[in-house]
Amino acid sequence: MKIYDVANFPNPLRVRIALAEKNATNNVQFIPVDLMNGEHRTAAFIAKNPAASVPVLELDDGTYISECTAITEYIDHLFEGPSLTGSTAKERAVINMLQKRAESMVLEPVGTYFHHATDGLGPALEIYQNKEWGQKQKEISLKGLSYFDTVLADNTYLAGDHFTIADITLYAGIGFAGFAKIDIPADLTHIHRWLSLVAERPSIKL
Amino acid sequence: MKIYDVANFPNPLRVRIALAEKNATNNVQFIPVDLMNGEHRTAAFIAKNPAASVPVLELDDGTYISECTAITEYIDHLFEGPSLTGSTAKERAVINMLQKRAESMVLEPVGTYFHHATDGLGPALEIYQNKEWGQKQKEISLKGLSYFDTVLADNTYLAGDHFTIADITLYAGIGFAGFAKIDIPADLTHIHRWLSLVAERPSIKL
Repeated sequence: MKIYDVANFPNPLRVRIALAEKNATNNVQFIPVDLMNGEHRTAAFIAKNPAASVPVLELDDGTYISECTAITEYIDHLFEGPSLTGSTAKERAVINMLQKRAESMVLEPVGTYFHHATDGLGPALEIYQNKEWGQKQKEISLKGLSYFDTVLADNTYLAGDHFTIADITLYAGIGFAGFAKIDIPADLTHIHRWLSLVAERPSIKL
Repeated sequence: MKIYDVANFPNPLRVRIALAEKNATNNVQFIPVDLMNGEHRTAAFIAKNPAASVPVLELDDGTYISECTAITEYIDHLFEGPSLTGSTAKERAVINMLQKRAESMVLEPVGTYFHHATDGLGPALEIYQNKEWGQKQKEISLKGLSYFDTVLADNTYLAGDHFTIADITLYAGIGFAGFAKIDIPADLTHIHRWLSLVAERPSIKL
């Protein structure tokens, strides 16, 4: 299988961590997308992913899968190893909920702040900006981080004792926040404890 | 189990359709939330769901599950009947991808248009509005509907021959669009064909 992506970008990172957690990275051929020159907005790329975003997984039968959660579902069900998305009804529900919250309360508002309230990827790519909305999203992301600090006060990882897709999304969101110069407040001690723990995982240290 | 929701609102509808598809509606006690008077923003409700949104599922062990995709995962894994989220790695990935696109390309932009560019739920609840952003989201939702028309040109339902959570999300999104007075263009003939088909399902006619 192939993955079209940009190394070190937040969403590609989510899928690369999932692959590494399943010891499956070597099964994938990575194809770089020249996002800074707008390759993701060409007709050829839109045919792979109408949302014009990376990463995109291409299966051996030619099917294209985009959206990090969808690609991670595929990886998690195809390869052996500890589950990233849960097994029982309750596990799957809790992990899905926390993953979605990590997207909607941290990763997505950070991304919207970056693309709308800062220079983002530069004027050639940021062709529509709404600075007031972007600033509002920064506030939302900081509230989201405070919420996750309370979750991590009671749990080793977001969904309990095991590292899951919810941790991956929050980790990518916090990395994106750093890139966008949103400081993680020092008093969110449980977030900082968890960040140190996650940073030591072989899938992250790679 | 209990579900805290508001009958006929778009997100509660998603979960109620999923329950009806699994013939599981009678297993749930529905508890109305007085959203129009701000009950979802009280401390008691935030303790159930920090996102302050409906629906919220309460399990018999006291666990609260919010986010429609998470509640639907729970329902789909707990009850018998045709799968709404898929079984194989590829099925699960395709359905997850299309569900997410139905959220990000239709349901969410329609909601943002409604809450930001119209009177929404009224001045007491719409305490921050960004009209320009809201109008932009209407354009995005119409582009999303055009994309789904192309998907439905080749498939009975979004993910193929079977009704899934992706269809539920798009159906709720289009219902919300109607409520927000966004007309579905007449030339999206595949969408209209699919809407007629979905409207005949017992889970929808209820």
